[in-house]
Amino acid sequence: MSDVGSGGGADSEGAGICAESLLERHMEMGTIGETPTGGVDRAALNDADTDAHALVMSWFRQPHYRIEVDDVGNLFIIRAGQDPNAGAVMTGSHLDTPPNGGRFDGALGVLAGAEVLASLDRQGIVTRRPIELAIWMNEEGSRFSPVTMGSAVRIGRLGLDEALNSVDENGAVFGPQLQRYFEKLGLEPMPGSRRDPAFYVELHIEQGPILENRGVRIGTVSGVQGVRQYRIDVAGKAAHAGTTPMDMRKDAFVAACRIAAGLSAEFTHDDERTRFTIGRMRVLPGAPNTVPEKASFTVDLRHPDPRQLAEYDAKISTVAAREASPCAVAVEPLISLEPVVFNPGICDLIAGSARRRGLSVETLLSGATHDAANMATVTKTGMIFIPCRDGVSHHEDEHAEPADMIAGANVLFDVILALAEKADSHAAIAAPALI
Amino acid sequence: MSDVGSGGGADSEGAGICAESLLERHMEMGTIGETPTGGVDRAALNDADTDAHALVMSWFRQPHYRIEVDDVGNLFIIRAGQDPNAGAVMTGSHLDTPPNGGRFDGALGVLAGAEVLASLDRQGIVTRRPIELAIWMNEEGSRFSPVTMGSAVRIGRLGLDEALNSVDENGAVFGPQLQRYFEKLGLEPMPGSRRDPAFYVELHIEQGPILENRGVRIGTVSGVQGVRQYRIDVAGKAAHAGTTPMDMRKDAFVAACRIAAGLSAEFTHDDERTRFTIGRMRVLPGAPNTVPEKASFTVDLRHPDPRQLAEYDAKISTVAAREASPCAVAVEPLISLEPVVFNPGICDLIAGSARRRGLSVETLLSGATHDAANMATVTKTGMIFIPCRDGVSHHEDEHAEPADMIAGANVLFDVILALAEKADSHAAIAAPALI
Repeated sequence: MSDVGSGGGADSEGAGICAESLLERHMEMGTIGETPTGGVDRAALNDADTDAHALVMSWFRQPHYRIEVDDVGNLFIIRAGQDPNAGAVMTGSHLDTPPNGGRFDGALGVLAGAEVLASLDRQGIVTRRPIELAIWMNEEGSRFSPVTMGSAVRIGRLGLDEALNSVDENGAVFGPQLQRYFEKLGLEPMPGSRRDPAFYVELHIEQGPILENRGVRIGTVSGVQGVRQYRIDVAGKAAHAGTTPMDMRKDAFVAACRIAAGLSAEFTHDDERTRFTIGRMRVLPGAPNTVPEKASFTVDLRHPDPRQLAEYDAKISTVAAREASPCAVAVEPLISLEPVVFNPGICDLIAGSARRRGLSVETLLSGATHDAANMATVTKTGMIFIPCRDGVSHHEDEHAEPADMIAGANVLFDVILALAEKADSHAAIAAPALI
Repeated sequence: MSDVGSGGGADSEGAGICAESLLERHMEMGTIGETPTGGVDRAALNDADTDAHALVMSWFRQPHYRIEVDDVGNLFIIRAGQDPNAGAVMTGSHLDTPPNGGRFDGALGVLAGAEVLASLDRQGIVTRRPIELAIWMNEEGSRFSPVTMGSAVRIGRLGLDEALNSVDENGAVFGPQLQRYFEKLGLEPMPGSRRDPAFYVELHIEQGPILENRGVRIGTVSGVQGVRQYRIDVAGKAAHAGTTPMDMRKDAFVAACRIAAGLSAEFTHDDERTRFTIGRMRVLPGAPNTVPEKASFTVDLRHPDPRQLAEYDAKISTVAAREASPCAVAVEPLISLEPVVFNPGICDLIAGSARRRGLSVETLLSGATHDAANMATVTKTGMIFIPCRDGVSHHEDEHAEPADMIAGANVLFDVILALAEKADSHAAIAAPALI
């Protein structure tokens, strides 16, 4: 691996990423699709999203890197390893954002991964395994449905055709937009299926308030909660608010509130791990002086235990039917994702790195889903979280402290290096824990 | 009054309106602004609304009628009485409708009034007092705000300027639209103030289910409930539905539901006269996987007792503040109308006519407001209700049985004739009750 430079034998004790370089990458990426109010708008496959991919590619034109794209647009930057037969260590995340999103969700994991590669180059470190930086296509699912589209196609959970036929709210189709992306990047998708990496590790902002509230710098993510989403449609009868006695009404909103209260009582009293959210409520016809004829609302329900989710699945229709009378009710399942458990050995590597670096560390569950949840179904997977201010994400106010970004990237550096087995030293760190 | 014809001395026992003629007027009026799906669309001052006014005018071109319009567009068809100094008996209602409204709300009262006048003509009846048919401008308030605009300006509760400056959702201003209406009808508004009538009586569909549910043909309306409307704005904090523990949330929709339940418990448990409706609920940002940041909803609250309404006014902010925590809440009053009590003597006349005609009759409150509620502040006022199917109104499905329309119009005939004191007989019917 003479490509990697002359410092291949340098001791990595005390080594890590270059803080200044990481923050420069972050500043530069934040200008691509930037909004006047401090956020970014990189909906999947819009010009800014494609430009963001091109920017990361531009950093890795050296001969020991290969750049590949697959047929759903996932981009892989592959740093050669010493052993051509060894499974790769993959890291990565995504560059797309929700409308008026922030500069950290997704981008942090890609930029930190890029900085780990560049730091290994600068330090002349050669690894036994190849290291791959994955930039997953359309993680957010806010322009083209579903979420984590690219990684879902990659692992075979979602059909390619379903992805290619996804249509945004302006009628644009994913497939033709993806062709434009390939052309702009000057890449042809690789034919055939790719080999799964040996390990996958992703750095991300928490997108929740737990680390910040506890004053903890690094989170080792034990897994991802399972998710259920339902739409509940209540049908009553429109009536005049002034002329219709209370006992002659079929008020769809009143019934919807009873159902909501019944579900909340069933789901949230005894188990602090449950997340129960009604995020959308539509009431028709929506006139102040008309008793509502229809109420339609969503239920988002998350729990780390698949048995608990199965119990919720069974209860939701029972509760809705019990509380709806005299209205009619229908429960429509929208999303069903099983909980994911990450690899305990990678969790230990993350915690060990944090402790050695003097960073407080705690184990927590991810409430949001991530590409890592897909990768966990095909390979040993782990995630590193850093705090974000007030738990805010998917918003222009999204913010992570530079010191935490640097800390998270250094932990990522340590974990990748341990997993990839530095060719000349320290190969033993990772091995025992990763059975 | 030789104009009225030769049958002035005919006995009115058994007399009344001509059923066939009433139903013909109803059919003809139903074609003006008709929708393909069985309703009508006569938003105030649109072409159909103006055409509807012109149609009624066309029926009264005889010399013993005068047609006048006031400066807000209320149209008066005045049948001369024997005593030029006697205060008039006024009847009427409105011809405008909500978008995709029905053929009965408002139109029934105007057409029945017109038929009463025509029937008096046919029967050659001369009355001591003049009889006026009022077609009130913009009762619905659904194109130009507020409701009962024309009668409110007429009695001085609403300034003319406020009416003239009202703007519809397409930016059209009431004043210029009203000028077009004057021009199309070929009328100039009368300068100066008009003399209040001695009595006002209005026939209307109930717009509620009570008469139909009880199998009653005629309602004598004792008054109109008072109305309060409020908008309640709850401000919480947006957060990720998966990552934010329940006890760290400020969920605006959860707080809104608590406020709604608290208000319902305070307002509806003990008093069956209360009407409490949440007709509009808006939740922002409205994404299934985001804890709501804002919830905004309307409260429509009605009661016949002004003291009870004053108590509600005091309680609503207390309950909202008590239940909102940890969210912030603001309560904005939108509408405040005091209850109206109609003239008991006119109620007795209505009940007496119904009984003589063998029609079942009950006293009830009006849950909706009407032009009669404005007129009650300046003159002795009464209202007659007939049933409508399923209590449905403001909808294309609005329906009243022809037999009930005829029954209501006959009661209106009797009451008008009693109040107007037929010049040659029966003058004593009305007098004792109307102190």
